[in-house]
Amino acid sequence: LSAGSAGAFGPWTETVEALAAELGATAAARDAAGGSAQAERELIRQSGLLALAVPVEWGGPGASWELVLRTVRRLAQADSSLAHLFGFQHLQVATVRLFGTAEQQARYLGATVRDRWFWGNAVNSRDTRLTATRIDGGWRLDGVKGFCSGALGSDVLNVSISTGPEPTDRTFFVLPSDRTGLEIRDDWNSFGQRQTDSGTVKFDGVVVTDAERLGPAPAADTPWPSLRSLLSQSILTEIYLGNAIAALEQAGHYVRAEARPWAASNVDTAGDDPTLQLRAGESWASLQAAIALADSGAARLSNAYAGGPALTEAARAETAVAVASARWMAGGTALAVTQRVFELMGARSTAGGLRLDRYWRNVRVHTLHDPLDLRARELGRWALTGAPPVASAYS
Amino acid sequence: LSAGSAGAFGPWTETVEALAAELGATAAARDAAGGSAQAERELIRQSGLLALAVPVEWGGPGASWELVLRTVRRLAQADSSLAHLFGFQHLQVATVRLFGTAEQQARYLGATVRDRWFWGNAVNSRDTRLTATRIDGGWRLDGVKGFCSGALGSDVLNVSISTGPEPTDRTFFVLPSDRTGLEIRDDWNSFGQRQTDSGTVKFDGVVVTDAERLGPAPAADTPWPSLRSLLSQSILTEIYLGNAIAALEQAGHYVRAEARPWAASNVDTAGDDPTLQLRAGESWASLQAAIALADSGAARLSNAYAGGPALTEAARAETAVAVASARWMAGGTALAVTQRVFELMGARSTAGGLRLDRYWRNVRVHTLHDPLDLRARELGRWALTGAPPVASAYS
Amino acid sequence: LSAGSAGAFGPWTETVEALAAELGATAAARDAAGGSAQAERELIRQSGLLALAVPVEWGGPGASWELVLRTVRRLAQADSSLAHLFGFQHLQVATVRLFGTAEQQARYLGATVRDRWFWGNAVNSRDTRLTATRIDGGWRLDGVKGFCSGALGSDVLNVSISTGPEPTDRTFFVLPSDRTGLEIRDDWNSFGQRQTDSGTVKFDGVVVTDAERLGPAPAADTPWPSLRSLLSQSILTEIYLGNAIAALEQAGHYVRAEARPWAASNVDTAGDDPTLQLRAGESWASLQAAIALADSGAARLSNAYAGGPALTEAARAETAVAVASARWMAGGTALAVTQRVFELMGARSTAGGLRLDRYWRNVRVHTLHDPLDLRARELGRWALTGAPPVASAYS
Amino acid sequence: LSAGSAGAFGPWTETVEALAAELGATAAARDAAGGSAQAERELIRQSGLLALAVPVEWGGPGASWELVLRTVRRLAQADSSLAHLFGFQHLQVATVRLFGTAEQQARYLGATVRDRWFWGNAVNSRDTRLTATRIDGGWRLDGVKGFCSGALGSDVLNVSISTGPEPTDRTFFVLPSDRTGLEIRDDWNSFGQRQTDSGTVKFDGVVVTDAERLGPAPAADTPWPSLRSLLSQSILTEIYLGNAIAALEQAGHYVRAEARPWAASNVDTAGDDPTLQLRAGESWASLQAAIALADSGAARLSNAYAGGPALTEAARAETAVAVASARWMAGGTALAVTQRVFELMGARSTAGGLRLDRYWRNVRVHTLHDPLDLRARELGRWALTGAPPVASAYS
Repeated sequence: LSAGSAGAFGPWTETVEALAAELGATAAARDAAGGSAQAERELIRQSGLLALAVPVEWGGPGASWELVLRTVRRLAQADSSLAHLFGFQHLQVATVRLFGTAEQQARYLGATVRDRWFWGNAVNSRDTRLTATRIDGGWRLDGVKGFCSGALGSDVLNVSISTGPEPTDRTFFVLPSDRTGLEIRDDWNSFGQRQTDSGTVKFDGVVVTDAERLGPAPAADTPWPSLRSLLSQSILTEIYLGNAIAALEQAGHYVRAEARPWAASNVDTAGDDPTLQLRAGESWASLQAAIALADSGAARLSNAYAGGPALTEAARAETAVAVASARWMAGGTALAVTQRVFELMGARSTAGGLRLDRYWRNVRVHTLHDPLDLRARELGRWALTGAPPVASAYS
Repeated sequence: LSAGSAGAFGPWTETVEALAAELGATAAARDAAGGSAQAERELIRQSGLLALAVPVEWGGPGASWELVLRTVRRLAQADSSLAHLFGFQHLQVATVRLFGTAEQQARYLGATVRDRWFWGNAVNSRDTRLTATRIDGGWRLDGVKGFCSGALGSDVLNVSISTGPEPTDRTFFVLPSDRTGLEIRDDWNSFGQRQTDSGTVKFDGVVVTDAERLGPAPAADTPWPSLRSLLSQSILTEIYLGNAIAALEQAGHYVRAEARPWAASNVDTAGDDPTLQLRAGESWASLQAAIALADSGAARLSNAYAGGPALTEAARAETAVAVASARWMAGGTALAVTQRVFELMGARSTAGGLRLDRYWRNVRVHTLHDPLDLRARELGRWALTGAPPVASAYS
Repeated sequence: LSAGSAGAFGPWTETVEALAAELGATAAARDAAGGSAQAERELIRQSGLLALAVPVEWGGPGASWELVLRTVRRLAQADSSLAHLFGFQHLQVATVRLFGTAEQQARYLGATVRDRWFWGNAVNSRDTRLTATRIDGGWRLDGVKGFCSGALGSDVLNVSISTGPEPTDRTFFVLPSDRTGLEIRDDWNSFGQRQTDSGTVKFDGVVVTDAERLGPAPAADTPWPSLRSLLSQSILTEIYLGNAIAALEQAGHYVRAEARPWAASNVDTAGDDPTLQLRAGESWASLQAAIALADSGAARLSNAYAGGPALTEAARAETAVAVASARWMAGGTALAVTQRVFELMGARSTAGGLRLDRYWRNVRVHTLHDPLDLRARELGRWALTGAPPVASAYS
Repeated sequence: LSAGSAGAFGPWTETVEALAAELGATAAARDAAGGSAQAERELIRQSGLLALAVPVEWGGPGASWELVLRTVRRLAQADSSLAHLFGFQHLQVATVRLFGTAEQQARYLGATVRDRWFWGNAVNSRDTRLTATRIDGGWRLDGVKGFCSGALGSDVLNVSISTGPEPTDRTFFVLPSDRTGLEIRDDWNSFGQRQTDSGTVKFDGVVVTDAERLGPAPAADTPWPSLRSLLSQSILTEIYLGNAIAALEQAGHYVRAEARPWAASNVDTAGDDPTLQLRAGESWASLQAAIALADSGAARLSNAYAGGPALTEAARAETAVAVASARWMAGGTALAVTQRVFELMGARSTAGGLRLDRYWRNVRVHTLHDPLDLRARELGRWALTGAPPVASAYS
């Protein structure tokens, strides 16, 4: 049970595995502590992986999104919160690529490589408390945004605001995290994904220039920019899978090392217990299906992204359906697997120090943003009527 | 959605409700803190409810087990850990009734009323590290027992040890919790049921007298004593239900007070959202079924207990099947409900301070002792072959 | 696993059991043949049970609805189609009681006893092809109605038509089945519930008199008449349960008599197979829960019906919730159980002659009228907002 | 929702689609009739597809197993029974390839191409009523075999018998279907897969020569021959998927053409109903996951087969796990989807003439051979202990 075959991260395999090992060693303790994991963010920065998806053109290695997503999954097996920060770093990079002018791409992606920028965001579209006022040569931002993943400790922020009711009315600003008037609060506290630094950002007369507003992109009215939300969804998919894979792996280790069979089972080891085998097999096989669908969706999405702005409506629709299907399946499967692994391990596996419930807590929290049932409804409409998922902030 | 109709606790209704309110007011904070809730145990003691099931004959009010179980459910809605302590208090009282001589019943149950004893236990049958050595006039106990719910802070302990392979080889000792050689450790730490004081008890040459060994009971070879494990199972059933009821109630409150509908839903309030209604209805109706089956099982068990030692094998089998069915159903339903309520409330309900995940954590931990799948197998054997559940420490 | 304890049908126990035995003996063959079971309808008529719920006042035995529903369940174990006809007979009797004047009750219920009337219906509210035109002294009916259970071979028909958009705009007519202009077609053919005679009735200038229009009832604007749809729902609930109970019983018989364990299971008989035990236990226990909830709902409904027109809005709401919960649970459980029993029995149990798939087919067909998901939504709205189920033709 | 992208059947695309169309046109009627579909078998024979997997070396087109399996899926969408016959044709071809000598491969596979042989089988390993007695220069077979798919109307039969307790003790004989002493009965009658000609074959002193016994194969003690059971499993996987895809497609057609929304839903068309969308989406996405896993398993298996006898134990284990996971997932998903589609379409979709229940009946019957729970246990043992699935007649 692994995130992929050996060498799946190409030239970065050793780097990814080393980073995963370092993060994993302290993940349980940091889940208990909560708060911001600035030291571990620094480990990610030093790995050089923050620029993974920056195109060669701007000095990056130009890794495919398939590889980026596989890396998110691998890191999520070790540390779900930091995998989220890692994934969303790349989402901001992609945002510049999808919405920025060539000049902006050169500027911001170049700096991402050169200065090892860690990107944060303040883009939660359901939070409408942030307002932008037109001023001479730019805008003044006032208000607050919640769920600003990665903002705390970031070098640069991607801020978005809707200037109208349409998905295309969404505006992205890029500004340094130390811009005057910005207050990035250390107030994130949820029962899962505890170190994603997803707190509140307060804007008090923050000035942004016109040059800091992404775009106009060459093809703003095409399906191409809507890939942003598909990338975002796919990152979540991989985080769910990483948690589920890790939970089932941990359960396997525990069963082999610790678990005792029930007397009534008449077997020598817990691994021989027919009921435990059945339950483990159900988790295993459903997880394999979720992984296969995620792999298929990631390949399609990676391909659509690599193809650039010429993306057709039809291809966009097929990709959106594939990505949404994968997320629905991964979310439901990960909830089930992370809940059920305790039935393989038994009561002692609930010892507080092991914090093995963190897999369920992480998935439970992370599946509530952009609810799975809404995705299912979109897929059902597609199946029943042929209407593709609406391109929106959340699809 | 309530544990029962108004007045369901008879003359104790006001007392039960007041106690539930007091425990509920601090339950979330104490779930965060963990450790021992000695002050809250004192509240229970002062309520006078510790003697609820003591027969009139020994000075108690002689409440039915149906009422005791309903009270466990009600308290579990407020505080799952203390409801467990409350329920297991009554299990120890029943142990004296089921296994003790008339003299021992008079002595121990009388003191339970008179001195407001809080009972703890050290009876976990899967932990075989405790040994009993015959000495002149009694026994010497050495070793340790884990999962000793309620031992910490108790007045008296029910200790059991198996002196042979048969269920009937089980011996119960009653001894004061401050007996020389006893060390009751404050080392319980699980991710759920965090204040059940279910830590380790160390026995270092603890001497018990023959008079402190329960029995011989008048009818030790009848089905009657095996009701003990059915009472134990039923307490768990009620705790699962209490958590699920509370979780769904909390979700209802939250949806009415806090939740916003998704834009795509085109409804005014979250309560109008068809998908949320569907999910809430699924949880509601399955919970109603679990409650109906638990009520039915509790009535049957209460009746069997009230009927005394004349209980037949056939009646015992029917009761065991009813109790096991109820526990299986309650456990599975409570896991599902406590997991899914977040889908009704949305992402903000995962805020750390609310600790709404404690319902799931409590149920998850508590369903691993005596696994539900083993119960299902017993019920399936009954359905397929007519063989009744084996009377054992766990059935 | 039985529909109830011995003697559960009171003075009718022997009659009910004999009828069930007769119907059961030919049920599989008649499921294959389909069509109308006039001979078996005659058996029901001769049993005298058609008048079970007619009040003593009009010459009937005045059995409770609890007993009627329990009888539906018992008959459905033997023959799901004829149990439906039996249940809907009583629904028409109740319709007269709920909507008719005292004079109409005397006339129609008296004749039901005296002349052993078998009632049919043409009341499907989703089918709006039937129109009523006011004529002198009555109405003229033209058009068709589908899903007219029991019409073929009936003595008398209950016909309903909505004269406006409100639930209370529903009008019931009672007319003899041989009234001029009526054409009762033998065109029912569904893959389940194959002998419910639920074909089409054609109305070609059918004249009904004002006296044949039920009502005005003494309290037409109270919750009392809305019990009709709750009785209808509860009949379905019992049919689901009867099929599921029968399927699991058949599986038990088959496993004991025929099934062989898989070699890999290393057990002597199929009944010893841990996986089969687990699956049988899951079906058993969930079915027990569905039965307990149905019993609880039936008791409440029976009580509300017995209480008469004084039924309060609050009591109606609680009853409606109980009845809908029971139907939702019974439907889902019966679908699952009737699908899964084959996993207990193995491939040879799919032999065409056994027709053991009829349990699933019956439940599958019968759960589509008034879909379970709509019930769940109503229950969820109740749980989330406190709004009671709307009183309608289907609730 | 399709079995694959356009052109997925390479040069055979037109042939496959034409065959599927012809079979699909009469499939519902033939499901009602049951019995043997000799005319439709002739259509398959005339399509030339019976030799699809025969290697180029022996005059066949040498199509990959990936393509064969994809064709099974496509045909199963149209006609599940004939897709089974088609798939098992190729299984017999593979049996010659896996177990036969080079000479036998030349003889039997050459004739398969040249004479358009339709293969039947009598290999059911659970049926031990067939015995082989050593005679001079060969064997004499006596007894019966059940579940002999495709035997009726075949040109040649693959017969197997276990001569000892080990998987490797299995012997395959190839003999013409008109061999003296063979009686191929037309006695297949199951409620699903109704035209697979899976009746009984009676052997009355049937003589087979040593030359008709397959083998000794060049590498009989390697993992290579065990691919047979993986091919067999994969055919079942594709049949499950074909039924589920067809059921969901039919439901989509029906919803668009026929279904009316419920009044309470306040939507214009059934396809706009949020609850129907949710349910359709759940079916769609889970089916996508099952398809993705099946595709992944088929690719791996096809690759292992193409690699020939050098297959390693490790590669065999990974392939067996992939194939079993795919079958478990496809089976469970297809059962759920084929059961639930009626909830999308409503009560009128159960009309007898539509026979839309055949998808469920087909899957229900076909998932009982080699039960899914046994596969799950094997996968669980792998997950918990690392022990690979045992190579057996059924794995």
